[in-house]
Amino acid sequence: MADAERKLNNGKSRIDFQADPSKYRHWKLTVDGDVATLLMDVDEKGTLFEGYELKLNSYDLGVDIELADAIERLRFEHPQVKVILLRSGKPRVFCAGANIRMLAGASHAHKVNFCKFTNETRNGIEDASEASGLFTICVINGTAAGGGYELALAADHIMLIDDGSSAVSLPELPLLAVLPGTGGLTRVTDKRKVRRDRADVFCTTEEGIKGKRAVDWRLVDEVVPASKLEEAVAKRAREFAAKSQRPPTGKGILLRPLTRERSADAVEYSTIAVEFDRPARLATVTLRGPQAEPPASAEAMVEQGAEFWPLKLARELDDAILDIRANEFDVAAIVFKSSGDPAQVLAYDQFLDANKEHWLAREIRGFWKRVLKRVDLTSRSLVALVEPGSCFAGTLAELVFASDRSYMLIGKRDGDNKPPATLALAAVNFGAYPMSNGLSRLASRFLADPTDLDRAKAAAGETLDAEAAERLGLVTFALDDIDWEDEIRVFLEERASFSADGLTGLEANLRFGGPETMESKIFARLTAWQNWIFQRPNAVGEEGALKRYGTGQKPAFDTRRV
Amino acid sequence: MADAERKLNNGKSRIDFQADPSKYRHWKLTVDGDVATLLMDVDEKGTLFEGYELKLNSYDLGVDIELADAIERLRFEHPQVKVILLRSGKPRVFCAGANIRMLAGASHAHKVNFCKFTNETRNGIEDASEASGLFTICVINGTAAGGGYELALAADHIMLIDDGSSAVSLPELPLLAVLPGTGGLTRVTDKRKVRRDRADVFCTTEEGIKGKRAVDWRLVDEVVPASKLEEAVAKRAREFAAKSQRPPTGKGILLRPLTRERSADAVEYSTIAVEFDRPARLATVTLRGPQAEPPASAEAMVEQGAEFWPLKLARELDDAILDIRANEFDVAAIVFKSSGDPAQVLAYDQFLDANKEHWLAREIRGFWKRVLKRVDLTSRSLVALVEPGSCFAGTLAELVFASDRSYMLIGKRDGDNKPPATLALAAVNFGAYPMSNGLSRLASRFLADPTDLDRAKAAAGETLDAEAAERLGLVTFALDDIDWEDEIRVFLEERASFSADGLTGLEANLRFGGPETMESKIFARLTAWQNWIFQRPNAVGEEGALKRYGTGQKPAFDTRRV
Repeated sequence: MADAERKLNNGKSRIDFQADPSKYRHWKLTVDGDVATLLMDVDEKGTLFEGYELKLNSYDLGVDIELADAIERLRFEHPQVKVILLRSGKPRVFCAGANIRMLAGASHAHKVNFCKFTNETRNGIEDASEASGLFTICVINGTAAGGGYELALAADHIMLIDDGSSAVSLPELPLLAVLPGTGGLTRVTDKRKVRRDRADVFCTTEEGIKGKRAVDWRLVDEVVPASKLEEAVAKRAREFAAKSQRPPTGKGILLRPLTRERSADAVEYSTIAVEFDRPARLATVTLRGPQAEPPASAEAMVEQGAEFWPLKLARELDDAILDIRANEFDVAAIVFKSSGDPAQVLAYDQFLDANKEHWLAREIRGFWKRVLKRVDLTSRSLVALVEPGSCFAGTLAELVFASDRSYMLIGKRDGDNKPPATLALAAVNFGAYPMSNGLSRLASRFLADPTDLDRAKAAAGETLDAEAAERLGLVTFALDDIDWEDEIRVFLEERASFSADGLTGLEANLRFGGPETMESKIFARLTAWQNWIFQRPNAVGEEGALKRYGTGQKPAFDTRRV
Repeated sequence: MADAERKLNNGKSRIDFQADPSKYRHWKLTVDGDVATLLMDVDEKGTLFEGYELKLNSYDLGVDIELADAIERLRFEHPQVKVILLRSGKPRVFCAGANIRMLAGASHAHKVNFCKFTNETRNGIEDASEASGLFTICVINGTAAGGGYELALAADHIMLIDDGSSAVSLPELPLLAVLPGTGGLTRVTDKRKVRRDRADVFCTTEEGIKGKRAVDWRLVDEVVPASKLEEAVAKRAREFAAKSQRPPTGKGILLRPLTRERSADAVEYSTIAVEFDRPARLATVTLRGPQAEPPASAEAMVEQGAEFWPLKLARELDDAILDIRANEFDVAAIVFKSSGDPAQVLAYDQFLDANKEHWLAREIRGFWKRVLKRVDLTSRSLVALVEPGSCFAGTLAELVFASDRSYMLIGKRDGDNKPPATLALAAVNFGAYPMSNGLSRLASRFLADPTDLDRAKAAAGETLDAEAAERLGLVTFALDDIDWEDEIRVFLEERASFSADGLTGLEANLRFGGPETMESKIFARLTAWQNWIFQRPNAVGEEGALKRYGTGQKPAFDTRRV
């Protein structure tokens, strides 16, 4: 199910995005005061799929799921950590990048999803730096090739051992006929700002670049003789720690395992229910509002920890989205619904606003930001149905604005006691959750006329009924009870009848109007070209470079430039 | 040769990008004072390839070549024209968009090149407005579907007849499983700034949108009853003409046919020579500097007309690039060389600087801007070889900066009298020729450190030898005569050995660091996704929507979302 052409290891039938540090197979996370060491030491046998080995610290999605987990845990469980030292546990190799045999045998869909998740993970490392002052120093003790160097590129500072052989490289094009697509090309030009002709040389030089030239060309920040390495690393760690605003002390909270009950056509979380209507190709995600008022204080929030409603919901939503992406390829559309008291949802938003200087409140808002970005980048049609009894207010209203279309029911339903649907905006809708293009969802929505955004701002705090929400441009259509069922059914049927690929392309363009950022360039320009290349015979054909790598046979290329 | 799967009409073996207004088959261009009417009246039989008919004002590349030609002629031959009325010569249909049977039968390479050229043409219409005050008003008298509406989107003002049936639509996704890829999606979100959920409705509604809703949703600027149409069009034409800064009177210059001598492995233009080394998969384009000093005055420049060296060179270079793109798929790299006196090249740049308020000087600079953008967007490796006797100065130096790599020879060649290679910068290198990302090529090159750009500016006017040019970061490598031949040979051989598709993706990413604009979004995000879709079975497979359109059979889709 997860991958038509490959079998998951250990008899599993789904890719699971939850990880448990006590069971990590590929990473060793140690914390010493305000410095954490994240040691990559990939277990060759610990593969996600059957049929390959993870030699030389190469990785597959399973390795990256642990990495993403470790970064989140550092943010929530170890708030006092200011610096991550990203290192290799293997001698003379930092990381050989994405495993080539895994890629060669993966379906197109898995390749695309693998790249998307690894990109999100690397963006998450950068977000930890920018938003939380949790800096990453990458120490390269040998080869950092391909995805290995792309991982290094996510760090704030790259140190390379000067031993005459340690080098950084992006050999994807010459070796495999694909791109350094986990942000590699874009970070080289837009983050490291390597001169374009030098980038061209670098990306076409299999063996990579080492020593002084690597520094001169801005590929790494410094080279250090092996004998001085530990001293230099400790010095840099102190420097970065000194710049961090993370709390000097801080008791973290434990990210306990999620509760999930899976049946054939449903997943029941604590704050979310997912229902699959497989004939209709729909997944309905219903978010449940809080059951109780916000805690009395920031300390009480810390006490609640992972049970604190906004955090619990964000984690469960993240897992649900990732599960659909990787395991439910036949789902055409994700339908967001909600149930609960909108006033309570807003009360939680106000609580987080009031405590926004508190490290945990900040981390929770940051987590929501990343989850919502994950939603934006999900290649399924996104639909919000705002119905009686729903609670799309504040943070939850972002899902309405993240949707490709939203429908809101006017008034009550015949023979139903639930209160009419309302929508409510709050301060959080105007900047706390930027999309990858750098704008809030409402600013992206109202690109044409900034006064529309002003009108929406002025309505913050109001309880908006369907007609008011439609007038303000917050939903696509407000519908009567009489029209509702037919309209929605016809729309969803039609959606499921369209070409799956056509919709992916359409949505990838319409969702991101306005400016581009390095992050959006990674998901648009770089990823779209990589996905194109991932279909080309020169890469994936029987005689293509990905298939022939390591066989001793040279690839045979169609030489025509397109 | 031009297209492996299709035969060109009339026994031709190459696609020719030159057009002659007296022989247009699809457009009628009339000029009345400061208003031109460009009437689309496509000849069904006048197809570029065999095997389809251009019904309902649908178009193929041949139709677009005439359109691009007409726009250029309005700029050069009719400098007094301030407004273009873009209209249909057919009743009840404006334009049905790109011809579907043409697309269904085209090779992937042709589809990609077709979209690229049509996008460049539409960008050219917008550039005429922005840079020259030559505004376009589009008058839609019936159906403007798909590419037909995309053409309208290039205009400054869209008028739609309000007759209860005339509508605009982007039905590509529902009908054909592809994207509105000639800028359509991007112009809807970023130029017309249509709200994203409305854009979603619009792009999934086959029959399109008409009347008041088309205005409310910002898809057109106004709807006009048929009875009032001519009056309204005349009024808008006056309004736009009043805003234009084009010269009130102005004798145009005639864009005479280019002189081209084609042999098996070469094309000889007047100011350019193209040589094909087919075993090595190289095209060498040698640009020749001017033979004489610049004319004494702007009037004398007008007198020279199309013979004026900078214009002649730009037109010939444009043709050479387009010819290679569309007809020489096996060329892996274009190698730019030049020969001539750099001082003369700079003299022409100074002449154009001195006359920059003159309409013809402005149009020539604008034409160079567009030709250089065309070079940037050409999916072949671009290489500049700066050798003794070359004249890469000012405008011509832009080709060095447009290249993926540049090599410069140090000193003289053994037994050769030519003067050592030099490079010279001029004012024109610092803003006159922005790339599609909005930055000059030097600013794009020196993103890392603005002081590098300052150093280059300070060196403007100097004659830089190879070592100085390398020190300033203007060339990739400066090489001795001893190393030159081997280094270049090995590099070009290696380049030709890489995957053609991999290189296309690599170069499309490395060439455009920094910001994105609507234009660069069209060529990156939209085009890259479209190219991906152009390979997906849902569109182009035997059971795909493009293949089955018009057969009465529904397409069969792979429903998996990737």
